[in-house]
Amino acid sequence: MAGMTSTTTGHTHQQEFKKPDGRALTLYGLQPIVVTSEIPSPSPEAVDARPVMRWHPLRGEWVMYAAHRLGRTFLPPPEYNPLAPTSDPEHPTELPRGTYDLAVFANRFPSLTLEAPEPPPGPAHTRAGVGACEVVVFSQNAAGRLSDLSDAQISLLLLVWADRTSRFASGDVIKSVLAFENRGVEVGVTLHHPHGQIYAYDHVPPVAGRMLDLAQQHQAETGHAWISDFVAAERASGERIVRDEGLSLSVVPPFARYTYETWILPARPVSLLSELTDDERDAFARVLKDALLRLDALFGVRMPYLLTVHQAPLDAAHPEFPLHIELYPYLRAPGRMKYLAGTEQGSGEFANDKFPEVAAAELREVNLDHV
Amino acid sequence: MAGMTSTTTGHTHQQEFKKPDGRALTLYGLQPIVVTSEIPSPSPEAVDARPVMRWHPLRGEWVMYAAHRLGRTFLPPPEYNPLAPTSDPEHPTELPRGTYDLAVFANRFPSLTLEAPEPPPGPAHTRAGVGACEVVVFSQNAAGRLSDLSDAQISLLLLVWADRTSRFASGDVIKSVLAFENRGVEVGVTLHHPHGQIYAYDHVPPVAGRMLDLAQQHQAETGHAWISDFVAAERASGERIVRDEGLSLSVVPPFARYTYETWILPARPVSLLSELTDDERDAFARVLKDALLRLDALFGVRMPYLLTVHQAPLDAAHPEFPLHIELYPYLRAPGRMKYLAGTEQGSGEFANDKFPEVAAAELREVNLDHV
Repeated sequence: MAGMTSTTTGHTHQQEFKKPDGRALTLYGLQPIVVTSEIPSPSPEAVDARPVMRWHPLRGEWVMYAAHRLGRTFLPPPEYNPLAPTSDPEHPTELPRGTYDLAVFANRFPSLTLEAPEPPPGPAHTRAGVGACEVVVFSQNAAGRLSDLSDAQISLLLLVWADRTSRFASGDVIKSVLAFENRGVEVGVTLHHPHGQIYAYDHVPPVAGRMLDLAQQHQAETGHAWISDFVAAERASGERIVRDEGLSLSVVPPFARYTYETWILPARPVSLLSELTDDERDAFARVLKDALLRLDALFGVRMPYLLTVHQAPLDAAHPEFPLHIELYPYLRAPGRMKYLAGTEQGSGEFANDKFPEVAAAELREVNLDHV
Repeated sequence: MAGMTSTTTGHTHQQEFKKPDGRALTLYGLQPIVVTSEIPSPSPEAVDARPVMRWHPLRGEWVMYAAHRLGRTFLPPPEYNPLAPTSDPEHPTELPRGTYDLAVFANRFPSLTLEAPEPPPGPAHTRAGVGACEVVVFSQNAAGRLSDLSDAQISLLLLVWADRTSRFASGDVIKSVLAFENRGVEVGVTLHHPHGQIYAYDHVPPVAGRMLDLAQQHQAETGHAWISDFVAAERASGERIVRDEGLSLSVVPPFARYTYETWILPARPVSLLSELTDDERDAFARVLKDALLRLDALFGVRMPYLLTVHQAPLDAAHPEFPLHIELYPYLRAPGRMKYLAGTEQGSGEFANDKFPEVAAAELREVNLDHV
């Protein structure tokens, strides 16, 4: 089956398709893409998504409302996995059979869409939920983990995140993109097939906006990029570095909010994934894989975690913004979860019962032979 | 046994004590306080708390480190409840036997203390964790809920929160106070005895600072207090009001981040609990109790929730700040928790799949006869 467009860049391949319900699908591979079945969708009907945003006047942030999750008439069999390639055409999934490594498609039940209609008049500061929500499937192996991917596949994932961001950047609607992976039943994940999501916003959300402001302030005050000073200080101390591959490194930051919080970052100022050189991206991929493996080895269980990719807002060039990945492991000790309670949610400040230097030493000492 | 000081105000009573390990204890009651046992502490040794704060340079907030939880040599029996009155002197709890309704004492393992020593030099922007952490025991009944308290007892709790805030305000160290209750095993609570906590900060944390800024901005732009405009708009619409007692009311705000998020607020601009009149406080207590009972009745299970009390910062008078309580129920449907995932933590914006108008209608329709 032929896709709509097919592109080859360096050693990577991608091909675009349209699903029966109109949603876009892109397949990515280290080998040329080959599709050997129909392009499926769990339902042929387009979802009538009418997401809405409302302004929180005392926190200064938008809240998204997606009340269109009704009408979900599709009743899957118990073992049905919508992220696996379709094996039974009676129960189509989101993906076709074929040769490819990663897949990206528009979320069937998005919190934001580019086509969001103007909502009926509502309480003050109600507007259309304009943006986009995509699903990124990391692998065809339903039982695998992100860290089971090869170095080259993780490097491809970084390219995919970069590609999605560049696509949004080429329009004039999207101002900020967040890629993330939430993993673990402990944090509400019911679909174990390795996958992540992308949220694309038509505005700059609070966390990205604050990071940009503070990084710009640092640059203005010191004349240095924040990332350069941070990497220099961490290398000078060495105490909190988990792995240093030269072009990229991982660190438990001195201000970690989660006990084993780990940041992966390039060693030079870069604001978007698309700016990484091939060598930097490959080093970044190795460091990321290493960090993920250490978290699973730490207590001998699959660590529940949230992984977020922080890139510069897209409303203008922001070279001061420090591209990095933040990994929040939710276990603070064997069997003990970190919960966001009073101070975290009520005040906006985290309490952590272990110093980052101690956590980093534990992560360095992990035995990776048995992972 | 005589307390250090004893005070009677109107129909409430309080008495102060010092625990064997030096920590402060205050008992509060609707009747005169009578203590019929020694004032206990789980351990006679003072905890050597050395909390530290570090600055998060890309979020602009402090992170608290409390690494002094080692040295916890006390091994309680399985059924030991440190918040119950001491019944076996071999295993002293935090509280004596006697006649009282509520108790407040300094947390044995605080994230912040007024005595925090200057830490050894650390990564940039490390400083002493100056502040205070208190435990507020709502009742002597270990199996009860906050909503099982009488109207008068809940009104007393509001007075206790006001009293603790006023004490901190009378010094010049504490700039912001957050009282909260986190309830439910689902959110990490292991101690079911009804209780809450108080965090007192030597600075204004991000959430309170942002609320103050935005409320001041509203007042400057409109000439009205935010709370007056909010209450007027909600009463005009009526759609989101859960209960209106005239002097105080509860509302699912139009910008609710949690599905059944409920705010309790006075009907006129008030910035601190201590400013409420007796009648306003009693109405506030009735509305709070009603909101809590509805949450438990909604799905017929004890709703896990976070309750936070938002009062003005203490660094100056801030009449623009809207005093209110925010209740975050963690269930968005029967058996379905709300988790803070990618967008909430990575972007700082919540996604909610039910409109507040619908949630408020459900809460109004709850049958309270069977609670």
